[in-house]
Amino acid sequence: MASNRYCIIMAGGSSTRFWPLSKSTSPKQFLDILGTGKTFIQSTYERFCQIIPKENIYVVTNEKYRDLLVNQLPELKEEQILLEPIRRNTAPCIAYACYKLLNIDPEANIVVTPADHLILNESKFLKTVESALSYTENHDALMTLGIHPNRAETAYGYIQINAEEQVDKHEHTYKVKTFTEKPNIELAKVFVDSGEFYWNSGIFVWNLKSILNALSENLPEIDSLFRDGVGIYNSPKEKDFIANIYSLCRSISIDFGVMEKAQNVYVKCADFGWSDVGSWASLFQVSPKKGRGNAEIGDNIITYNTSNCIISNKSDKMLVVQGLNDYIVAQTDQATMIIPKSNEKEVKNIVADVSNLSKEFI
Amino acid sequence: MASNRYCIIMAGGSSTRFWPLSKSTSPKQFLDILGTGKTFIQSTYERFCQIIPKENIYVVTNEKYRDLLVNQLPELKEEQILLEPIRRNTAPCIAYACYKLLNIDPEANIVVTPADHLILNESKFLKTVESALSYTENHDALMTLGIHPNRAETAYGYIQINAEEQVDKHEHTYKVKTFTEKPNIELAKVFVDSGEFYWNSGIFVWNLKSILNALSENLPEIDSLFRDGVGIYNSPKEKDFIANIYSLCRSISIDFGVMEKAQNVYVKCADFGWSDVGSWASLFQVSPKKGRGNAEIGDNIITYNTSNCIISNKSDKMLVVQGLNDYIVAQTDQATMIIPKSNEKEVKNIVADVSNLSKEFI
Repeated sequence: MASNRYCIIMAGGSSTRFWPLSKSTSPKQFLDILGTGKTFIQSTYERFCQIIPKENIYVVTNEKYRDLLVNQLPELKEEQILLEPIRRNTAPCIAYACYKLLNIDPEANIVVTPADHLILNESKFLKTVESALSYTENHDALMTLGIHPNRAETAYGYIQINAEEQVDKHEHTYKVKTFTEKPNIELAKVFVDSGEFYWNSGIFVWNLKSILNALSENLPEIDSLFRDGVGIYNSPKEKDFIANIYSLCRSISIDFGVMEKAQNVYVKCADFGWSDVGSWASLFQVSPKKGRGNAEIGDNIITYNTSNCIISNKSDKMLVVQGLNDYIVAQTDQATMIIPKSNEKEVKNIVADVSNLSKEFI
Repeated sequence: MASNRYCIIMAGGSSTRFWPLSKSTSPKQFLDILGTGKTFIQSTYERFCQIIPKENIYVVTNEKYRDLLVNQLPELKEEQILLEPIRRNTAPCIAYACYKLLNIDPEANIVVTPADHLILNESKFLKTVESALSYTENHDALMTLGIHPNRAETAYGYIQINAEEQVDKHEHTYKVKTFTEKPNIELAKVFVDSGEFYWNSGIFVWNLKSILNALSENLPEIDSLFRDGVGIYNSPKEKDFIANIYSLCRSISIDFGVMEKAQNVYVKCADFGWSDVGSWASLFQVSPKKGRGNAEIGDNIITYNTSNCIISNKSDKMLVVQGLNDYIVAQTDQATMIIPKSNEKEVKNIVADVSNLSKEFI
C-alpha cells in the first residue's frame, strides 16, 4: 500500500433518527443497526484497512464519543483520533484533519468518508477508491464518488456530470456540472431518466495540496483559523487550540462550502451497492426480508400475520408481533417504539417528547 | 370480628393468558396487572382482613409459588399456607383446606374466594359477604355470590335463581335453580333479559359442617382421601400425606363436583363492581381510559394517533406507540407483545411458540 495514502473517517454525527436504537450517547455510526455483527464505524475502518495503511486512518468525532470509539476500534492510536469539541458540519472537520496531516505528510493523498454508510460490493468499492486515489495522486482534483441511481430517490442529493468532459483513461470519471439538493419525486424521476445525474455519496478523494488550496479559496475564514495551528497540531497544545477555534468556526458542509464552488471538481461514477442507511425506509430497503417481506433484525423475534415491517430487536427480550403491516417495531434495553413506516419523519418529535419525559431514554 | 370466621383464598392458578405479564413462574394472582400498586392476592388478603381475623385467613397455592406468596404476604404464618404439590382444580383444594380447618375449629364459618378477582365497591362486597356469613352461621347452606349482569357476557358462567324461593329476611338471596356453562352471545342476551340469571363469581360461603357433608355426599372418593388425614393435618406428617393423596385425586371443580349437585345451594345476588379480570378484554373493560380510549397501565408510555388499545408497561423502559387501534401492547423486562385485541385467544399459541424458542421467557 502506498504510504502516502490516508483515510479520514468522519464520525461526529449525533442523529437520533434511529431512536430507540440510536441515542445522542450512542449515535448510528457506533451501532450495528444492520445486524451484521459489526458497527458501522468498525465496518468502515476494516474496509479501508484493505487499501490504506492502518496507521494512516484517522477518525474525527465528537469528544463525547471518544470512549465509544476507543472501545470499538482499540487499534487506533491516540494520534489517529481527532476530537471535535462541538459540531460544525463537515468543512471544519475536514479542515482540521487536513491541517493536522500537513504536519505529518504534505504529500498525503486522501479519501474522506462518512463512518456510517453501507457498502455491499466491497471489492468494487475499493477498486473505485483506489482508481480515484491514483488520479488525485498527481492531479489537482477534488473528486467525489457518484452512485449510479437505481431508483428516483428523494433522500439523496444528486450530482450532474458534464458528459462531454470525461477524464482521460479514467472510466466513468467526469467533470461535475452541478450539485443539487434532495429533489422532489418528479424531479428525481427526471434526474434518473436523464442518465446525467448520480447520487452524491459524500465520499471524497483528493490530495492534501488540492483540498488546502480549495479551502483557502472558498472558505478563507475557516481555512485561516485552522492554518494558524500549523506547528501546534500533534503537540500538547492542539486540544486547547481546537477548543478555541471551533467556537469561532461557522457550521458549514464541505459540499456547500467547497465542492459547489470549486472549478476542479470531478465525480467518479460507480455502482457498488451503496446506501447511506439514513432512514428506517433505507434500512428496510437494504435488509434481507423474511416471511411476508419483513426485515427482521436481531434474535428472539416472532411474527404472525405481519408483513412489510421492519422489526429490530436489539435487546435480549422477546418481541412478538401480530397483525401489523408496514410498521417499524424497534426494541432496545431502554425502549420500544411502534410506528407506521410512513410516519418515520415523526421520530424526531417522538424523541423530543420522550426527552421531555426523561433524558435517560435518549 | 367473630373468631369462628375463616377465609380460604385459592391461589393455585398458573394461567399465562396475560403473557408476557403473567408467566408460569409468576401467574396473575401474584401480579399487579391493574396497576393499582398491589398484586391481586395482596388486594384480596387486605380486603378480607377487614371482616375476618387475620390469623383465620388461609391461602392454598402450588408449592412452586410458596416464595412468591411469602414475599407478597409476609404476615402469613407458616400454618396459614397450604401447598398443593400438583394442580387438581378447586374441589380438592377446598377439601384440603376444610379438613385442615376441622382440626382447628369445627365451628368454622367460611368464605372461599379466588385470589385474583377485582372488586370495585369494597364496602358493598364486604357487607354482602358478612350477610352471607351471618346466614351460613346457623343454616346448612352452600352459598355462592351471584353478580347482577350488566351486559351479555359470554366469558362467565351463569346461575339461575329460583325467584319463588327467596330466603327469609335475606335480601336478594335465593335458592339456585341451575348453574350454566359460559353461554354463546344469543343465550347470554336471553339470560340477562330474563332477570333470573346472575354471573357465577366463584366466591362461596358456608359453614364447615355443611361443606364437609356436601363433599361426603357428592364427591365421596375425594372426601374419603382427605378425611383420612384427620389427626395428620397441622402435624409434621401433613406434607407427605398431601403429596400422596393429591396424586390419587382426580381434578374436578367444586362447581361441577358439588354445587351443581347439592340440594342446599343458594345464591346471594349483589352488584359490587366485580370482574374476574380473566382476559385482556376484561382488563380493558375495567381499566380507566386515557386519550382516545386507551387503557394505559404503567409509566413511561407515550401514544400518538392510537385508540382503544390496552397498553401495559411493566418495565422501566419507554413504550412509544403510534397509529394503532384496538391492539394489546404489553411490555415487561422479558418481552414485548403486540397483538390485535380481537386475537387475544391466540396468546396461548404465542406462549407455546415462545416456549419452543426458549423457556426463559415463559
